Amino acid sequence: MTSKGLLLHEVGLRDGLQMESQVVPLEKKAAWLSGLLESGMDIIQVGSFVHPVKVPQMADTDELFRRFTAHKKPRAILSGLVLNEKGLERGLACGVEMFCLGASASETHSLKNTGMGTDEAVTRIIGAAKAAVAAGKKVQLSVQSAFGCGFEGLISEERVLKIVRAYVEAGLRNISLADTAGHAHPAQVERLFGAVLALDPGIECACHFHNTYGLGMANMFAALRAGVSSFETSFAGLGGCPFTKVAAGNVATEDFVHVLQLEGLRKDVSLDRLLAVARDAAAHFERDMQGFVYKTGPIRTQTAV
Amino acid sequence: MTSKGLLLHEVGLRDGLQMESQVVPLEKKAAWLSGLLESGMDIIQVGSFVHPVKVPQMADTDELFRRFTAHKKPRAILSGLVLNEKGLERGLACGVEMFCLGASASETHSLKNTGMGTDEAVTRIIGAAKAAVAAGKKVQLSVQSAFGCGFEGLISEERVLKIVRAYVEAGLRNISLADTAGHAHPAQVERLFGAVLALDPGIECACHFHNTYGLGMANMFAALRAGVSSFETSFAGLGGCPFTKVAAGNVATEDFVHVLQLEGLRKDVSLDRLLAVARDAAAHFERDMQGFVYKTGPIRTQTAV
Repeated sequence: MTSKGLLLHEVGLRDGLQMESQVVPLEKKAAWLSGLLESGMDIIQVGSFVHPVKVPQMADTDELFRRFTAHKKPRAILSGLVLNEKGLERGLACGVEMFCLGASASETHSLKNTGMGTDEAVTRIIGAAKAAVAAGKKVQLSVQSAFGCGFEGLISEERVLKIVRAYVEAGLRNISLADTAGHAHPAQVERLFGAVLALDPGIECACHFHNTYGLGMANMFAALRAGVSSFETSFAGLGGCPFTKVAAGNVATEDFVHVLQLEGLRKDVSLDRLLAVARDAAAHFERDMQGFVYKTGPIRTQTAV
Repeated sequence: MTSKGLLLHEVGLRDGLQMESQVVPLEKKAAWLSGLLESGMDIIQVGSFVHPVKVPQMADTDELFRRFTAHKKPRAILSGLVLNEKGLERGLACGVEMFCLGASASETHSLKNTGMGTDEAVTRIIGAAKAAVAAGKKVQLSVQSAFGCGFEGLISEERVLKIVRAYVEAGLRNISLADTAGHAHPAQVERLFGAVLALDPGIECACHFHNTYGLGMANMFAALRAGVSSFETSFAGLGGCPFTKVAAGNVATEDFVHVLQLEGLRKDVSLDRLLAVARDAAAHFERDMQGFVYKTGPIRTQTAV
């Protein structure tokens, strides 16, 4: 598939839940995290370190980390999203193993999200990332709105590559391109990841797609062909806005693992455990989630007649 | 893309509506067909010629054809599905230009659907197809359940290729592989279409995917890469069973045209007209349909800042 292997990075507890206005109790988050750990996912994003007043859903991120890191090394790498130095401090204090940081390629999105333009945000993020590396932690740097922006429309590939070059020049080569708005399409995905991977042989790419226009899964396969090695997904397809009919969630983890296994890949992951987590999430939120396979069950693939 | 071009075949009025228990009035079908014709689709399947008692939804297929063929040549090729010689007679009498016929690669599915095993069904279908060709009509022959079967599970590729060889030996080279159960996955799609196209340089392939497990769009792109030249889709993603939460519809026509246009293809088709038909269908059925773009609107792709 890719020479670098294929890593599964679960981000539902962060990118999924942050869109949910109803705060999920800590015990429920812990139960889902346990299920995800048991499934055999490689990396699990536990939450983000943002101001609890701004995002109440993430107020217990530190405590959730501590529960799973205080007494033993967890089975997966536990990642946390941080926006700044303050978040980094909190993450270092509670056992984060992999720090995810990012800047938006859309100037408008960057200003709305952080109050800083892209250039300033990139500089600041690189500073925090270097501090995390100095503390012995893994780091992943993302470019948000890499494939288009709800505010600005098309984002030029040169804007994205400029940010990636800044990361690489700082020695940071674990790079995620995030399709924040769901605008990516397969030819663009192959082209842009191809261009990023061509910058430096040490780069490892991750992808993050939203399914706003029904293209999430097709884009995952385009990324796979382009040589992307880490795939970010959310259990049950969490991540869309529950108050509209627009299905803007992430690609569902269990749907992606299901098709990978049809293709003979990652049979080490427990699809049953992932389906159990997705079904429990659907029961918790009492609504139809974006995932498919938690509703249908997996395809029966017994030997042909 | 492919040397043979890329044809769009709308099948919602047949494969979509046949799943709907509520019979759609003829005037409504005619309005949707008019919109689809104005959009610039290449081929539009108007209905099937089955016994009206068996499928009441299709009872007015002959009349719908006559409305659009009696006075002038329609802008698109109008296709009709026939199961047997009786259907062929009806189709020839009401102006069908392209006959679609098929047999299932799953013995169980074939028996349940037609009362005949696969071999007998193939022989009979080839006979009817030759009669259509003799009458000066276009013909497309499909293999149903080509990628897996709800009853039998996996279907061996050799079973599919055996049917295709029988078609080709009869001089019938317009071949559709239908993923009736939605079991197809991208690597399988590329492999099987590659094997079919390798059988004879005169073969033109069509594909037909259901989105049961969320893989429809990814499979369309796999088919495009494999050299498939005709793509079957349903407006609004019609085709799933409306009485379950399982989203087993076809890939939505307007979603596919939307992404093709993002990729610079088929800009001659009016996405706006397709979206209007999909929105009218959602209003008619008073439910959330499987398509995405009729809800979100298309991606704004103005020049990058």
